[in-house]
Amino acid sequence: MQYHLNGFHPGDPEVLPAAPGHQVPGSSLPEAVDVLIVGSGPAGLTLAAQLAAFPEISTRIVERRPEPLERGQADGISCRSMEMFNAFGFAEKVLKQGYWVNETTFWKPDAGRTDHIVRSGRVQDVEDGLSEMPHVILNQARVHDMYLEVMRNAPSRLEPDYALQLVDLDVDPAGGDHPVTVRLEPVGADQGDEVVTLRARYVVGCDGARSAVRRSIGLTLKGDSANHAWGVMDVLAVTDFPDIRFKTLIQSAGEGNIIIIPREGGYLVRLYIELDKLADGERVANRTITVDHLIAATQRIFRPWSIDVKEVVWWSVYEIGQRLTDKFDDVPPAGRSTRLPHVFIAGDACHTHSPKAGQGMNVSMGDAFNLGWKLVSVLRGLCPPDILHSYSAERRAVAKDLIEFDKEWARIISERPKDGAADNGDTPKFQRYFIEHGRYTAGMSVRYAPSALTGDGQWQSLASGFEIGARFHSAPVIRLADGKPMELGHVVKADARWRVFAFCGGGDAAAEGGGLIELCRFLSESEASPLRRFTRRDADIDSVIDFRAVFQQHFRDLAIERMPALLRPRKGRLGLVDYEKMFCADLSQGRDIFDLRGIDREPGCLVVVRPDQYVAHVLPLDAHDQLAAFFDGFMLP
Amino acid sequence: MQYHLNGFHPGDPEVLPAAPGHQVPGSSLPEAVDVLIVGSGPAGLTLAAQLAAFPEISTRIVERRPEPLERGQADGISCRSMEMFNAFGFAEKVLKQGYWVNETTFWKPDAGRTDHIVRSGRVQDVEDGLSEMPHVILNQARVHDMYLEVMRNAPSRLEPDYALQLVDLDVDPAGGDHPVTVRLEPVGADQGDEVVTLRARYVVGCDGARSAVRRSIGLTLKGDSANHAWGVMDVLAVTDFPDIRFKTLIQSAGEGNIIIIPREGGYLVRLYIELDKLADGERVANRTITVDHLIAATQRIFRPWSIDVKEVVWWSVYEIGQRLTDKFDDVPPAGRSTRLPHVFIAGDACHTHSPKAGQGMNVSMGDAFNLGWKLVSVLRGLCPPDILHSYSAERRAVAKDLIEFDKEWARIISERPKDGAADNGDTPKFQRYFIEHGRYTAGMSVRYAPSALTGDGQWQSLASGFEIGARFHSAPVIRLADGKPMELGHVVKADARWRVFAFCGGGDAAAEGGGLIELCRFLSESEASPLRRFTRRDADIDSVIDFRAVFQQHFRDLAIERMPALLRPRKGRLGLVDYEKMFCADLSQGRDIFDLRGIDREPGCLVVVRPDQYVAHVLPLDAHDQLAAFFDGFMLP
Ligand SMILES: Cc1cc2nc3c(=O)[nH]c(=O)nc-3n(C[C@H](O)[C@H](O)[C@H](O)COP(=O)(O)OP(=O)(O)OC[C@H]3O[C@@H](n4cnc5c(N)ncnc54)[C@H](O)[C@@H]3O)c2cc1C
Ligand SMILES: Cc1cc2nc3c(=O)[nH]c(=O)nc-3n(C[C@H](O)[C@H](O)[C@H](O)COP(=O)(O)OP(=O)(O)OC[C@H]3O[C@@H](n4cnc5c(N)ncnc54)[C@H](O)[C@@H]3O)c2cc1C
Repeated sequence: MQYHLNGFHPGDPEVLPAAPGHQVPGSSLPEAVDVLIVGSGPAGLTLAAQLAAFPEISTRIVERRPEPLERGQADGISCRSMEMFNAFGFAEKVLKQGYWVNETTFWKPDAGRTDHIVRSGRVQDVEDGLSEMPHVILNQARVHDMYLEVMRNAPSRLEPDYALQLVDLDVDPAGGDHPVTVRLEPVGADQGDEVVTLRARYVVGCDGARSAVRRSIGLTLKGDSANHAWGVMDVLAVTDFPDIRFKTLIQSAGEGNIIIIPREGGYLVRLYIELDKLADGERVANRTITVDHLIAATQRIFRPWSIDVKEVVWWSVYEIGQRLTDKFDDVPPAGRSTRLPHVFIAGDACHTHSPKAGQGMNVSMGDAFNLGWKLVSVLRGLCPPDILHSYSAERRAVAKDLIEFDKEWARIISERPKDGAADNGDTPKFQRYFIEHGRYTAGMSVRYAPSALTGDGQWQSLASGFEIGARFHSAPVIRLADGKPMELGHVVKADARWRVFAFCGGGDAAAEGGGLIELCRFLSESEASPLRRFTRRDADIDSVIDFRAVFQQHFRDLAIERMPALLRPRKGRLGLVDYEKMFCADLSQGRDIFDLRGIDREPGCLVVVRPDQYVAHVLPLDAHDQLAAFFDGFMLP
Repeated sequence: MQYHLNGFHPGDPEVLPAAPGHQVPGSSLPEAVDVLIVGSGPAGLTLAAQLAAFPEISTRIVERRPEPLERGQADGISCRSMEMFNAFGFAEKVLKQGYWVNETTFWKPDAGRTDHIVRSGRVQDVEDGLSEMPHVILNQARVHDMYLEVMRNAPSRLEPDYALQLVDLDVDPAGGDHPVTVRLEPVGADQGDEVVTLRARYVVGCDGARSAVRRSIGLTLKGDSANHAWGVMDVLAVTDFPDIRFKTLIQSAGEGNIIIIPREGGYLVRLYIELDKLADGERVANRTITVDHLIAATQRIFRPWSIDVKEVVWWSVYEIGQRLTDKFDDVPPAGRSTRLPHVFIAGDACHTHSPKAGQGMNVSMGDAFNLGWKLVSVLRGLCPPDILHSYSAERRAVAKDLIEFDKEWARIISERPKDGAADNGDTPKFQRYFIEHGRYTAGMSVRYAPSALTGDGQWQSLASGFEIGARFHSAPVIRLADGKPMELGHVVKADARWRVFAFCGGGDAAAEGGGLIELCRFLSESEASPLRRFTRRDADIDSVIDFRAVFQQHFRDLAIERMPALLRPRKGRLGLVDYEKMFCADLSQGRDIFDLRGIDREPGCLVVVRPDQYVAHVLPLDAHDQLAAFFDGFMLP
């Protein structure tokens, strides 16, 4: 963590000084805002936490519920989301409080006694090296709490306005600075009473599966509305089932299926129960299922093991289909060239899917993280508003993939297990499918297509492990100035900045005429340098594009005083030196970052990383013009 | 982290439910308390954080200052203290916010130009494998904040009473339940006005080098009162000195010495300046030294490098000698057999030393951690009060060692550097001494002598790496129930419980007649079992002695359902199963915990760990009687 740049501040460095004009608890809504976020679920809070860092952007977030969520809903946090939490600064808390999914086990009917189940296999849940972060389980409510804390500690002191709901909104594309007019009403108010109107530059509907924002812009969820119904319960229970603290998939012969999700704290467990066989009058559609039915079904499926539920913390019958909207913004399909988006939808508002693959919260947060930096960049005047079109383009493709995956996965998991022989020896199909799609469920298979924001693959071979369009895959390095072992990816914070990493070639990186020196000269001196073109004169040189270097040598073999000044930039009110721009390979582990990420050691390369941690481009170290051209493609001088 | 044992609680699990009768902010002092802590420095807060977990013990802490510390004083946190912070639950925050000392560099006069300095060497600061924790630097004020948060979140909601100072105290050994009478006065009150009287079972003077508690019990600090004076300043500065972000020891030829301590946040740095050569009128003893003198001296010592101080955050001229009291409690040397201690002193109140070895805060916290669990055990009726004698015995020996070390180190560091040839080739003496004493400064050389609380070494060879009397050296393991990779040492929390680890021998640990099974039978069934003798019937079986097992096998090769019930204890209001008692060797790293800690694989062994993380005993797995006898030696049935 870097702090005290503009002078010493006592107290917790994670509580940033409040900005002038910050939100005051209980204050009434202004007449107009830059961004109105509707809904404080995972999508809304991810966006709010991102925007809260920029007090010059006026943001409010309204929430229908009277207070923060306390229990229930989603709980799966993919490795990819953990990486994002790290950028927001609370991954370590989730690591501490959450359950880590280390192993997944599989159970199927016992061939000898099909009313009993036996373990059919077990696999490591996340493949080695996929991420520096584990797969974690923590109640969505706790994730909300951590975002709320980030917001409260941010300069704008952003807090949701609870018990306030969006009624509808109108967009007038020619409506000047604040083209969206929103109508809000306090929850519980008499019909039509007390409706307040608010104007906004942008509105983001993070208002869940029944989104009023979606309705207001005329979009609908398309697809199967409810093809599977599962019961879900969070319980404190006593069982002799041996895998109760492992994530477990159980297929019984005739009583239905269960997914066990062990939960935070060591005692709590979530059970998803798919009810194959219901007693009379237990039809899900009739909504007569009670938690006692779920418990009884669990007991039947668990046989020969017993389970005694001591406390039901939360339960629900979760009926949801795979559905998707055509677009994630208010621009009609044909209007892209003539209209700019002003209203967006994110998360469950634009895509719903079964809970079985544990993606709901993750993909929703991913939507908001994609949109957040784009809104920040446009509102700060760094990028033209047409980059906002890319949100729907990029995230709808992700959601579409997810829905395909979810359909297949839901189908496989609900299939009646065949007997051993017919099903490829001993490994049931659901177990094979699970293993094959581990990267998918870890959130690692998102690839943004080439666009103004994402380069083509011309130079991909210079760094085959930093796949363009995929998330920047961290690896261990040593910081040059202080010898600290760390993860390179952890320098990417949720601060809406771009990163350019120079991976230096072999030889003396500080040598006159070498690739790094020439690059630094270009970046510091040329009129065409993106650092010079897009950074305000009075701002720190790394405030828009954060340039860093990674060397192949051991940190003891490099002399910091010979390094270019651009890598030791003077910053802040006092002109202090930032010593955290240079890294060395970590040679203690055998394979260093150059090996791990397939970087061509001889020439080295440039890796450009988007503010949302995705790789935007890979270029040769001396491709100064291409680098400049890339940023020129979407930034405003 | 384990939570929700007695039912689900929404919100942050680190905020424990307040106990009935918890402290209310602004409440007046009661007439009598179990423990009064005087002073809220590192010693007082360590003790307060420990006691705050036990609301049945009434504790108050008074502090002369009007509010929490904001800057200055100590900043070095040894690996050992980090391990302790982990037990208190805030190590991850210190890891995140603090500076990590990875490397120490050494500079000496340039042989060619003695008014310039050159780097003479660099060493890794902490040897590999010494601790799972790094050596960290963070302002003492921030450490205070973290303890204060632990206290605020504890069931007793303990907060210091600020601006209240101890005047003096009296002990009447025959004075019944509350033999200590304390007189307190608000700071700034008129002389003698408003003095309040409070009675306490125990008073702990954590009131620093000028301790009034020490004076009241007739003890004095003995030794050199001020043999070295150093200037110290925390600054934001710009320099071209290349090692400004490494801990650095500089010996100049004639301008004095500097220790550079890079600080948290990436910009701040602390400089200790020993002023060899002062201009006229700059004598430390005359106290005319200003921060400008310190800056000027730094600039002279740094040559040929420059330094430009932009902001002085804190500075002091720190004159302190190596001093020690004869005892750390109020029992006269001859009174041990007839009197019980009621007043203790800890930290700077009983020992002072130079800041150069960075031990002040660490040793003070170590004192309090040693005393804390003993007070808890006595006040909860688990141990007889005579175990309290061991505090002075154990900690005075540690302080005495420290003072010897500090004298030697202070002498070496202040020696004029000889020229290269005369001083053993190129490695200056201070550099060699530093390397040799790395374990010492990491806090790892404390060894408590055999006593009722610490066994003899008869069976040490069964686990040569768990040295009896030394701190329990953690190593990686895998938790059996959920396959989680973790540090075994991290199960030891600051909860005043004892731990018994059974390291199982080779072969099937669950086999009838085997060492583990027999041990569990003894512990669960025998009248002589310390678990049965010392645990109240209505309390969880692990609430006094926490029994755990470590297996040699891979976690996939063990069946949890075959393990003894004692290792899957039913706990809490709901009788839930605690799944966190069993661990497996981590076979992924080459050397597992059995190799790393020299455990004899064939027979296995028992390792008993004190509540303050020190190894109390190593015994054979079948030494049931010796185990029972050990606990009988200091516990009350
Ligand atoms: C009852 C329930 C149970 C679920 N169970 C599971 C599960 O077991 N497993 C799983 O993986 N996923 C589950 N999910 C889905 C998971 O919670 C979502 O995928 C995830 O929360 C999506 O995040 P989001 O931010 O898009 O929407 P949501 O989390 O739904 O948040 C939408 C927010 O908007 C608010 N809102 C709605 N309309 C308005 C309005 N007009 N004005 C203001 N505020 C409004 C809502 O109160 C809500 O807080 C469940 C969802 C629900 C609702
Ligand atoms: C000014 C100063 C500078 C220091 N600089 C360094 C340094 O640069 N490097 C380093 O390693 N160490 C330094 N130290 C030493 C280091 O801070 C101590 O070793 C460490 O704080 C010891 O902890 P403690 O809890 O024993 O005592 P302290 O931290 O001294 O805490 C004692 C507390 O008791 C309070 N108190 C005192 N008398 C009373 C009373 N009668 N009633 C109520 N409260 C009372 C004090 O206000 C204080 O808060 C410094 C100490 C001081 C005081």
